[in-house]
Amino acid sequence: MPQPAPARIGDAVEDVDTPALLIDLDAFERNLEKMAAFTKNAGVRLRPHAKTHKSAHIARLQMELGAVGVCCQKVSEAEALVQAGIQDVLISNQVVGRHKLNRLSALARHAKVAVCADDADNVVDLNAAAGQVGVIMDVLVEIDVGAGRCGVAPGDAAVTLAKEIDRARNLRFVGLQAYQGAAQHIRDFAERKMAINAAQVLTKKTVELLSAAGLKCDTVGGAGTGTYEFHTTSKVWNELQCGSYVFMDVDYGQNRMSDGKPFRAFENSLFVLATVMSKTREDFCTIDAGHKALGNDQGFPWVHELEEVTYSKPSDEHGRLDLSQTRQALKLGDKVRLVPGHCDPTVNLYDWYVGVRNGRVEALWPVTARGALT
Amino acid sequence: MPQPAPARIGDAVEDVDTPALLIDLDAFERNLEKMAAFTKNAGVRLRPHAKTHKSAHIARLQMELGAVGVCCQKVSEAEALVQAGIQDVLISNQVVGRHKLNRLSALARHAKVAVCADDADNVVDLNAAAGQVGVIMDVLVEIDVGAGRCGVAPGDAAVTLAKEIDRARNLRFVGLQAYQGAAQHIRDFAERKMAINAAQVLTKKTVELLSAAGLKCDTVGGAGTGTYEFHTTSKVWNELQCGSYVFMDVDYGQNRMSDGKPFRAFENSLFVLATVMSKTREDFCTIDAGHKALGNDQGFPWVHELEEVTYSKPSDEHGRLDLSQTRQALKLGDKVRLVPGHCDPTVNLYDWYVGVRNGRVEALWPVTARGALT
Repeated sequence: MPQPAPARIGDAVEDVDTPALLIDLDAFERNLEKMAAFTKNAGVRLRPHAKTHKSAHIARLQMELGAVGVCCQKVSEAEALVQAGIQDVLISNQVVGRHKLNRLSALARHAKVAVCADDADNVVDLNAAAGQVGVIMDVLVEIDVGAGRCGVAPGDAAVTLAKEIDRARNLRFVGLQAYQGAAQHIRDFAERKMAINAAQVLTKKTVELLSAAGLKCDTVGGAGTGTYEFHTTSKVWNELQCGSYVFMDVDYGQNRMSDGKPFRAFENSLFVLATVMSKTREDFCTIDAGHKALGNDQGFPWVHELEEVTYSKPSDEHGRLDLSQTRQALKLGDKVRLVPGHCDPTVNLYDWYVGVRNGRVEALWPVTARGALT
Repeated sequence: MPQPAPARIGDAVEDVDTPALLIDLDAFERNLEKMAAFTKNAGVRLRPHAKTHKSAHIARLQMELGAVGVCCQKVSEAEALVQAGIQDVLISNQVVGRHKLNRLSALARHAKVAVCADDADNVVDLNAAAGQVGVIMDVLVEIDVGAGRCGVAPGDAAVTLAKEIDRARNLRFVGLQAYQGAAQHIRDFAERKMAINAAQVLTKKTVELLSAAGLKCDTVGGAGTGTYEFHTTSKVWNELQCGSYVFMDVDYGQNRMSDGKPFRAFENSLFVLATVMSKTREDFCTIDAGHKALGNDQGFPWVHELEEVTYSKPSDEHGRLDLSQTRQALKLGDKVRLVPGHCDPTVNLYDWYVGVRNGRVEALWPVTARGALT
């Protein structure tokens, strides 16, 4: 069963039960508009990654501002969003195994669905699954442009696989998935840009080889919030897949821009609201947000507007706030806003977004695809 | 919405969709029986911590074997378990804030509920909340016996707070919460034992001071899977709160016993089943289990029965298996069992347990209190 919402519409923020996942709606809306304007001006399509927010409502807001659809990372994520009304989903990932392939092809009868492949046997399986339910499945070849995770090598291997897809009766080759995930969190601006330049050379060459083989790429997809700016000048990519820009997090906030300053193109709009639940010492207090309330895999949260207070020593349900460097006392029952270390796995821990504006709860949105793992 | 179950009763394990949370039912049942026998022989009560499994069904199995009830860490966790039929719950934690106090006292009308306190103002609030719904709430004083997280200092401070509880019209002082969480993962046997010996001295002294003040401790609770053996000889603690013993994990498996060998008193019964979803290189493959499928906060999972294969480089939805040190090839679609680094936050990511025996799915149990954060 999903958990009850931790607030009611109209509540003061201070009255939200904790831990809770807050969205600062003003900052969030500015983030959505900024990326929409950027991609429009750059002449590229935006297909935001829904693995960040897992919300049908946020996907709709993105599409109302011009996004062509969304990316999902899992079939179950796509199922949840399609069922909630999203009609254009790219699964930017491989789908392997009988049950998942059955679900994928069934879903393609209910929405525009595309998928990535990096293996010839998997292409055979995709074709068979699509044939069984009578759909033509759109397939992108994923190429490894430096992330070292999934994808065939750029160049000839990609052309070979694209030809397999093109020959398959129930599949349609629609382009390339060329995401350099490892580049997103390179802190230095020049190094980050260089990683994307290298990916660009590999992607461009692959597109040209495909073209020479008579295979047109309708879509060349990639880019994340850390590198989106570098993906437009070359005109190699035509569809950006940024996700985290809607919320931002501590991790992305540590990237540096060309002037050496921290990356602040988008605002922190996502917070975990937590309560001081124990205060028996002078130098620290304990709050009610630990590993089950925060994605700490890329580092600990920042304490919003209390810069001298640091979060540490999380256990499953507790975190410590070090008060030794601050004059601001926190007392039992006080609430603090944490900027999550990593937004995507944090969101996945909650059933509800609590949208706030001017100190009041304005929206309660379900995390539609929370826990969609398969 | 909860996710659909990733299997059907009777399926072969290989046919379970992934990632999935498997229980090896034979190993699991042996773990339950072993701890039940240990506590029975030692003459102490067992109140296992349900924050590990979050399952009403597993709680019932534990109580059928003699456990007096369960511990929960959150009011919402207790609500979910009480609603599913568990009638005796200790919230081994502080409950702070108007809404949580209302929920706690309402819950106490429907089950035997106790809670911990470490603050005099909180005791006033607990008393008021209990009075509003007309219940007498059982309250333990939490003392900090070395964990440095919650709890008043042992000794006089605990007596002072216990007196406040005893004076409160709607509260009943029932004992001490004396959990040394920081000791659980001290690797060296002698050091781990020493930490509990220190906690024991502090707890014993506090019990004696309380007794001298006319305050009897019905319950002196504490202990975890890492230290349970050290809590019985002294007869200071009378209620053990171990949780992880039902499943074990990589983290507990790294503790050492008195002979220097790894801690293996309980068996690994919990696994994340994952699938090889990309295999484009010789030296590694990519599986479909990353941060959203595994609690990696205490370290990465082990790959079960493939000792030379190591898990690394997790991202949100992917993990890498290094194959460079093994002759065992893994191919696309192969399934592997991972022993989670940390069982509690791993369980919280899933809606379903898939109980397996003799290679077949025998049980599908909901993770009753999954996501119960507040």
